Amino acid sequence: MPIDLAQHIRNIPDFPIPGVQFKDITSLLLSPDAFNETIARMVDLAAEARVDRLAAVDSRGFIFAAPMATRMGLPLVLLRKAGKLPGATLSYDYNLEYGQASLEVHADDVPSGARVLIIDDLVATGGSLKAAAALIEKAGGETAGIGVVIELIGLGGREALADYDLFSLVTFEVDE
Amino acid sequence: MPIDLAQHIRNIPDFPIPGVQFKDITSLLLSPDAFNETIARMVDLAAEARVDRLAAVDSRGFIFAAPMATRMGLPLVLLRKAGKLPGATLSYDYNLEYGQASLEVHADDVPSGARVLIIDDLVATGGSLKAAAALIEKAGGETAGIGVVIELIGLGGREALADYDLFSLVTFEVDE
Repeated sequence: MPIDLAQHIRNIPDFPIPGVQFKDITSLLLSPDAFNETIARMVDLAAEARVDRLAAVDSRGFIFAAPMATRMGLPLVLLRKAGKLPGATLSYDYNLEYGQASLEVHADDVPSGARVLIIDDLVATGGSLKAAAALIEKAGGETAGIGVVIELIGLGGREALADYDLFSLVTFEVDE
Repeated sequence: MPIDLAQHIRNIPDFPIPGVQFKDITSLLLSPDAFNETIARMVDLAAEARVDRLAAVDSRGFIFAAPMATRMGLPLVLLRKAGKLPGATLSYDYNLEYGQASLEVHADDVPSGARVLIIDDLVATGGSLKAAAALIEKAGGETAGIGVVIELIGLGGREALADYDLFSLVTFEVDE
Protein backbone atom coordinates (compact mmCIF):
# COMPACT_ATOMS: atom_id res chain seq x y z
CA MET A 1 0.00 0.00 0.00
CA PRO A 2 1.51 3.32 -0.98
CA ILE A 3 1.40 5.93 1.76
CA ASP A 4 -1.40 8.49 1.35
CA LEU A 5 0.59 11.65 2.02
CA ALA A 6 -2.55 13.82 2.12
CA GLN A 7 -3.59 11.95 5.28
CA HIS A 8 -0.43 13.21 6.97
CA ILE A 9 -1.06 16.89 6.19
CA ARG A 10 -3.14 18.54 8.85
CA ASN A 11 -5.68 21.27 8.08
CA ILE A 12 -5.69 24.23 10.47
CA PRO A 13 -8.67 26.56 9.97
CA ASP A 14 -8.27 30.33 10.26
CA PHE A 15 -4.47 30.48 10.20
CA PRO A 16 -2.74 32.88 9.80
CA ILE A 17 -5.95 34.90 9.30
CA PRO A 18 -9.67 34.08 9.54
CA GLY A 19 -11.01 32.23 6.52
CA VAL A 20 -7.72 30.62 5.49
CA GLN A 21 -7.39 26.83 5.71
CA PHE A 22 -3.71 26.34 6.48
CA LYS A 23 -2.08 23.11 5.30
CA ASP A 24 0.34 22.10 8.01
CA ILE A 25 3.32 19.94 7.06
CA THR A 26 4.57 19.53 10.64
CA SER A 27 2.26 16.51 11.05
CA LEU A 28 3.93 14.93 8.01
CA LEU A 29 7.38 15.44 9.56
CA LEU A 30 6.33 13.46 12.64
CA SER A 31 5.88 10.31 10.54
CA PRO A 32 9.30 9.01 9.45
CA ASP A 33 7.70 6.78 6.81
CA ALA A 34 5.62 9.60 5.32
CA PHE A 35 8.48 12.11 5.38
CA ASN A 36 10.84 9.59 3.80
CA GLU A 37 8.27 8.76 1.12
CA THR A 38 7.81 12.48 0.44
CA ILE A 39 11.52 12.94 -0.18
CA ALA A 40 11.71 9.79 -2.32
CA ARG A 41 8.84 10.98 -4.54
CA MET A 42 10.29 14.49 -4.83
CA VAL A 43 13.65 13.02 -5.85
CA ASP A 44 11.98 10.80 -8.48
CA LEU A 45 10.14 13.76 -10.00
CA ALA A 46 13.22 15.98 -9.82
CA ALA A 47 15.23 13.35 -11.69
CA GLU A 48 12.96 13.78 -14.73
CA ALA A 49 14.41 17.23 -15.41
CA ARG A 50 18.04 18.04 -16.18
CA VAL A 51 19.02 19.79 -12.95
CA ASP A 52 22.40 21.17 -11.83
CA ARG A 53 21.40 22.40 -8.41
CA LEU A 54 18.48 22.80 -6.05
CA ALA A 55 17.24 26.10 -4.62
CA ALA A 56 15.30 26.05 -1.34
CA VAL A 57 12.76 28.74 -0.51
CA ASP A 58 13.01 30.18 3.03
CA SER A 59 12.14 28.47 5.30
CA ARG A 60 9.88 25.42 4.96
CA GLY A 61 11.48 24.74 1.58
CA PHE A 62 14.69 23.96 3.47
CA ILE A 63 13.04 20.95 5.11
CA PHE A 64 12.41 19.23 1.78
CA ALA A 65 15.26 20.56 -0.37
CA ALA A 66 18.02 19.59 2.07
CA PRO A 67 17.29 15.83 2.13
CA MET A 68 16.74 15.94 -1.65
CA ALA A 69 20.14 17.60 -2.15
CA THR A 70 22.03 15.04 -0.08
CA ARG A 71 20.20 12.17 -1.78
CA MET A 72 20.74 13.56 -5.30
CA GLY A 73 24.29 14.78 -4.70
CA LEU A 74 23.40 18.28 -5.91
CA PRO A 75 24.54 21.69 -4.62
CA LEU A 76 21.91 23.43 -2.49
CA VAL A 77 21.27 27.16 -2.84
CA LEU A 78 19.24 29.11 -0.28
CA LEU A 79 16.67 31.71 -1.35
CA ARG A 80 16.12 33.79 1.75
CA LYS A 81 14.06 36.62 3.10
CA ALA A 82 15.77 40.01 3.11
CA GLY A 83 18.75 40.46 5.42
CA LYS A 84 19.43 36.81 6.22
CA LEU A 85 22.24 36.01 3.78
CA PRO A 86 25.62 37.34 4.88
CA GLY A 87 27.44 37.55 1.53
CA ALA A 88 26.94 39.71 -1.57
CA THR A 89 23.34 39.17 -2.64
CA LEU A 90 20.95 39.83 -5.48
CA SER A 91 17.36 40.52 -4.50
CA TYR A 92 13.94 40.43 -6.09
CA ASP A 93 10.98 42.37 -4.72
CA TYR A 94 7.44 41.11 -5.10
CA ASN A 95 3.95 41.95 -3.96
CA LEU A 96 2.10 40.07 -1.26
CA GLU A 97 -1.62 40.33 -0.68
CA TYR A 98 -0.77 42.97 1.91
CA GLY A 99 2.51 44.76 1.36
CA GLN A 100 5.81 43.78 -0.21
CA ALA A 101 8.43 41.13 0.32
CA SER A 102 11.91 40.53 -0.98
CA LEU A 103 13.78 37.33 -1.74
CA GLU A 104 17.59 37.20 -1.84
CA VAL A 105 20.27 34.85 -3.14
CA HIS A 106 24.05 34.93 -2.86
CA ALA A 107 25.09 36.26 -6.26
CA ASP A 108 27.84 33.65 -6.65
CA ASP A 109 25.63 30.67 -5.85
CA VAL A 110 23.98 30.53 -9.27
CA PRO A 111 26.58 30.09 -12.02
CA SER A 112 25.69 31.42 -15.46
CA GLY A 113 23.41 28.95 -17.25
CA ALA A 114 23.02 26.65 -14.24
CA ARG A 115 19.74 24.72 -14.35
CA VAL A 116 18.10 25.23 -10.98
CA LEU A 117 15.15 23.30 -9.56
CA ILE A 118 13.27 25.42 -7.02
CA ILE A 119 11.81 23.59 -4.00
CA ASP A 120 9.17 24.76 -1.53
CA ASP A 121 6.57 23.12 0.67
CA LEU A 122 3.50 24.57 -1.01
CA VAL A 123 2.15 26.59 -3.92
CA ALA A 124 -0.92 28.76 -3.39
CA THR A 125 -1.06 31.91 -5.56
CA GLY A 126 2.44 31.25 -6.87
CA GLY A 127 3.68 34.73 -5.93
CA SER A 128 6.74 33.76 -3.95
CA LEU A 129 7.68 30.95 -6.36
CA LYS A 130 7.41 33.30 -9.32
CA ALA A 131 9.73 35.67 -7.46
CA ALA A 132 12.10 32.77 -6.76
CA ALA A 133 12.26 31.91 -10.46
CA ALA A 134 12.79 35.55 -11.41
CA LEU A 135 15.61 35.75 -8.87
CA ILE A 136 17.32 32.65 -10.29
CA GLU A 137 17.12 34.20 -13.74
CA LYS A 138 18.37 37.57 -12.49
CA ALA A 139 21.40 35.72 -11.08
CA GLY A 140 22.09 34.23 -14.53
CA GLY A 141 20.61 30.77 -14.04
CA GLU A 142 17.74 28.95 -15.69
CA THR A 143 14.71 27.66 -13.82
CA ALA A 144 14.72 23.94 -14.60
CA GLY A 145 11.44 23.52 -12.76
CA ILE A 146 9.57 24.04 -9.53
CA GLY A 147 8.76 21.24 -7.10
CA VAL A 148 6.40 21.45 -4.13
CA VAL A 149 4.85 18.96 -1.76
CA ILE A 150 1.40 20.57 -1.70
CA GLU A 151 -0.51 22.34 -4.48
CA LEU A 152 -3.61 24.32 -3.58
CA ILE A 153 -6.05 24.24 -6.51
CA GLY A 154 -8.17 27.30 -7.11
CA LEU A 155 -5.77 30.07 -6.12
CA GLY A 156 -4.12 30.51 -9.52
CA GLY A 157 -0.69 29.18 -8.63
CA ARG A 158 -0.29 26.82 -11.58
CA GLU A 159 -1.55 29.53 -13.94
CA ALA A 160 0.87 32.12 -12.53
CA LEU A 161 3.72 29.64 -13.01
CA ALA A 162 2.63 28.48 -16.48
CA ASP A 163 6.08 29.33 -17.87
CA TYR A 164 7.65 26.66 -15.69
CA ASP A 165 7.49 22.91 -15.21
CA LEU A 166 5.72 22.55 -11.88
CA PHE A 167 5.31 19.30 -9.98
CA SER A 168 3.48 18.60 -6.73
CA LEU A 169 2.81 15.46 -4.70
CA VAL A 170 -0.53 16.32 -3.11
CA THR A 171 -3.35 18.61 -4.23
CA PHE A 172 -6.13 20.20 -2.22
CA GLU A 173 -9.11 22.08 -3.60
CA VAL A 174 -9.58 25.49 -2.03
CA ASP A 175 -12.78 27.51 -2.05
CA GLU A 176 -12.31 31.22 -1.92
CA MET B 1 41.44 11.88 2.97
CA PRO B 2 38.57 12.96 5.21
CA ILE B 3 36.89 16.18 4.14
CA ASP B 4 37.97 19.23 6.16
CA LEU B 5 34.55 20.73 6.81
CA ALA B 6 36.03 23.92 8.24
CA GLN B 7 37.42 24.70 4.77
CA HIS B 8 33.85 24.75 3.44
CA ILE B 9 32.58 27.28 5.99
CA ARG B 10 33.06 30.83 4.82
CA ASN B 11 33.89 33.67 7.19
CA ILE B 12 31.99 36.92 6.55
CA PRO B 13 33.35 39.85 8.58
CA ASP B 14 31.01 42.43 10.10
CA PHE B 15 27.74 40.52 9.66
CA PRO B 16 25.11 41.12 10.91
CA ILE B 17 26.82 43.97 12.80
CA PRO B 18 30.35 45.46 12.75
CA GLY B 19 32.87 43.37 14.68
CA VAL B 20 31.10 40.03 14.27
CA GLN B 21 32.76 37.32 12.19
CA PHE B 22 29.81 35.42 10.73
CA LYS B 23 30.31 31.72 9.94
CA ASP B 24 28.41 31.07 6.74
CA ILE B 25 27.17 27.55 6.06
CA THR B 26 25.81 28.35 2.59
CA SER B 27 29.26 27.63 1.13
CA LEU B 28 29.14 24.17 2.73
CA LEU B 29 25.75 23.48 1.12
CA LEU B 30 27.20 24.14 -2.32
CA SER B 31 29.53 21.14 -1.97
CA PRO B 32 27.50 17.92 -2.16
CA ASP B 33 30.42 15.92 -0.72
CA ALA B 34 30.91 18.26 2.22
CA PHE B 35 27.18 18.55 2.97
CA ASN B 36 26.75 14.79 2.76
CA GLU B 37 29.75 14.25 5.04
CA THR B 38 28.29 16.77 7.50
CA ILE B 39 25.03 14.85 7.70
CA ALA B 40 26.83 11.51 8.00
CA ARG B 41 28.94 12.76 10.92
CA MET B 42 25.94 14.33 12.65
CA VAL B 43 24.05 11.03 12.32
CA ASP B 44 27.00 9.08 13.76
CA LEU B 45 27.21 11.39 16.78
CA ALA B 46 23.44 11.42 17.23
CA ALA B 47 23.42 7.62 17.28
CA GLU B 48 25.54 7.65 20.43
CA ALA B 49 22.62 8.98 22.47
CA ARG B 50 19.27 7.27 22.98
CA VAL B 51 17.05 9.53 20.90
CA ASP B 52 13.32 9.26 20.11
CA ARG B 53 13.00 12.32 17.89
CA LEU B 54 14.89 15.28 16.50
CA ALA B 55 14.00 18.92 17.04
CA ALA B 56 15.17 21.50 14.49
CA VAL B 57 15.76 25.12 15.46
CA ASP B 58 14.28 27.72 13.05
CA SER B 59 15.56 28.07 10.41
CA ARG B 60 19.12 26.95 9.56
CA GLY B 61 18.64 24.00 11.90
CA PHE B 62 16.05 22.69 9.42
CA ILE B 63 18.78 22.23 6.79
CA PHE B 64 20.69 19.74 8.92
CA ALA B 65 17.94 18.14 11.00
CA ALA B 66 15.75 17.20 8.01
CA PRO B 67 18.33 14.98 6.26
CA MET B 68 19.29 13.51 9.64
CA ALA B 69 15.66 12.65 10.37
CA THR B 70 15.10 10.87 7.06
CA ARG B 71 18.38 8.99 7.42
CA MET B 72 17.73 7.98 11.02
CA GLY B 73 14.02 7.28 10.59
CA LEU B 74 13.11 9.60 13.45
CA PRO B 75 10.18 12.03 13.81
CA LEU B 76 11.17 15.65 13.21
CA VAL B 77 9.80 18.44 15.42
CA LEU B 78 10.10 22.10 14.46
CA LEU B 79 11.07 24.75 17.04
CA ARG B 80 9.98 27.99 15.44
CA LYS B 81 10.04 31.72 15.96
CA ALA B 82 6.82 33.20 17.33
CA GLY B 83 3.74 33.10 15.13
CA LYS B 84 4.96 30.55 12.56
CA LEU B 85 3.38 27.35 13.86
CA PRO B 86 -0.34 27.05 13.06
CA GLY B 87 -1.46 24.62 15.77
CA ALA B 88 -1.70 24.90 19.57
CA THR B 89 1.76 25.89 20.78
CA LEU B 90 3.85 26.22 23.88
CA SER B 91 6.35 29.06 23.91
CA TYR B 92 9.51 30.01 25.75
CA ASP B 93 10.78 33.59 25.94
CA TYR B 94 14.47 34.36 26.20
CA ASN B 95 16.78 37.34 26.14
CA LEU B 96 18.92 38.26 23.16
CA GLU B 97 21.84 40.67 23.36
CA TYR B 98 19.36 43.35 22.30
CA GLY B 99 15.75 42.63 23.14
CA GLN B 100 13.74 39.45 23.53
CA ALA B 101 12.82 36.49 21.38
CA SER B 102 10.41 33.61 21.69
CA LEU B 103 10.61 30.01 20.52
CA GLU B 104 7.51 27.89 19.96
CA VAL B 105 6.67 24.21 19.56
CA HIS B 106 3.42 22.42 18.81
CA ALA B 107 2.35 21.18 22.23
CA ASP B 108 1.46 17.70 20.90
CA ASP B 109 4.76 17.17 19.07
CA VAL B 110 6.72 16.25 22.21
CA PRO B 111 5.17 13.26 23.98
CA SER B 112 5.75 13.00 27.70
CA GLY B 113 9.20 11.60 28.40
CA ALA B 114 10.29 11.63 24.76
CA ARG B 115 14.08 11.94 24.40
CA VAL B 116 14.68 14.78 21.98
CA LEU B 117 17.95 15.67 20.26
CA ILE B 118 18.05 19.37 19.37
CA ILE B 119 19.79 20.31 16.10
CA ASP B 120 21.03 23.71 14.93
CA ASP B 121 23.74 24.99 12.63
CA LEU B 122 25.81 26.80 15.25
CA VAL B 123 26.31 27.50 18.93
CA ALA B 124 27.67 30.88 19.99
CA THR B 125 26.46 32.12 23.40
CA GLY B 126 24.05 29.19 23.69
CA GLY B 127 21.07 31.45 24.40
CA SER B 128 18.71 30.12 21.75
CA LEU B 129 19.74 26.49 22.32
CA LYS B 130 19.20 26.85 26.05
CA ALA B 131 15.73 28.19 25.26
CA ALA B 132 15.15 25.27 22.89
CA ALA B 133 16.02 22.78 25.65
CA ALA B 134 13.81 24.60 28.15
CA LEU B 135 10.95 24.50 25.64
CA ILE B 136 11.34 20.72 25.10
CA GLU B 137 11.23 20.25 28.85
CA LYS B 138 8.24 22.58 29.22
CA ALA B 139 6.44 20.38 26.68
CA GLY B 140 7.16 17.30 28.81
CA GLY B 141 10.13 15.88 26.93
CA GLU B 142 13.74 15.30 27.90
CA THR B 143 16.67 16.89 26.12
CA ALA B 144 18.73 13.90 24.99
CA GLY B 145 21.44 16.20 23.68
CA ILE B 146 22.26 19.12 21.42
CA GLY B 147 24.05 18.76 18.11
CA VAL B 148 25.46 21.58 16.00
CA VAL B 149 27.72 21.79 12.98
CA ILE B 150 29.76 24.76 14.23
CA GLU B 151 30.86 25.63 17.75
CA LEU B 152 32.27 29.09 18.41
CA ILE B 153 34.79 28.87 21.25
CA GLY B 154 35.08 31.85 23.58
CA LEU B 155 31.47 33.02 23.71
CA GLY B 156 30.37 30.82 26.60
CA GLY B 157 28.03 28.52 24.69
CA ARG B 158 29.38 25.23 26.01
CA GLU B 159 29.37 26.62 29.54
CA ALA B 160 25.78 27.88 29.23
CA LEU B 161 24.76 24.41 28.01
CA ALA B 162 26.79 22.49 30.61
CA ASP B 163 23.66 20.60 31.71
CA TYR B 164 23.40 18.97 28.27
CA ASP B 165 25.43 16.66 26.09
CA LEU B 166 26.61 18.95 23.30
CA PHE B 167 28.37 17.80 20.16
CA SER B 168 29.80 19.84 17.29
CA LEU B 169 31.69 18.99 14.12
CA VAL B 170 33.82 22.10 13.65
CA THR B 171 35.15 24.63 16.17
CA PHE B 172 36.34 28.18 15.61
CA GLU B 173 38.07 30.40 18.16
CA VAL B 174 36.43 33.79 18.52
CA ASP B 175 38.06 36.90 19.99
CA GLU B 176 35.73 39.36 21.59
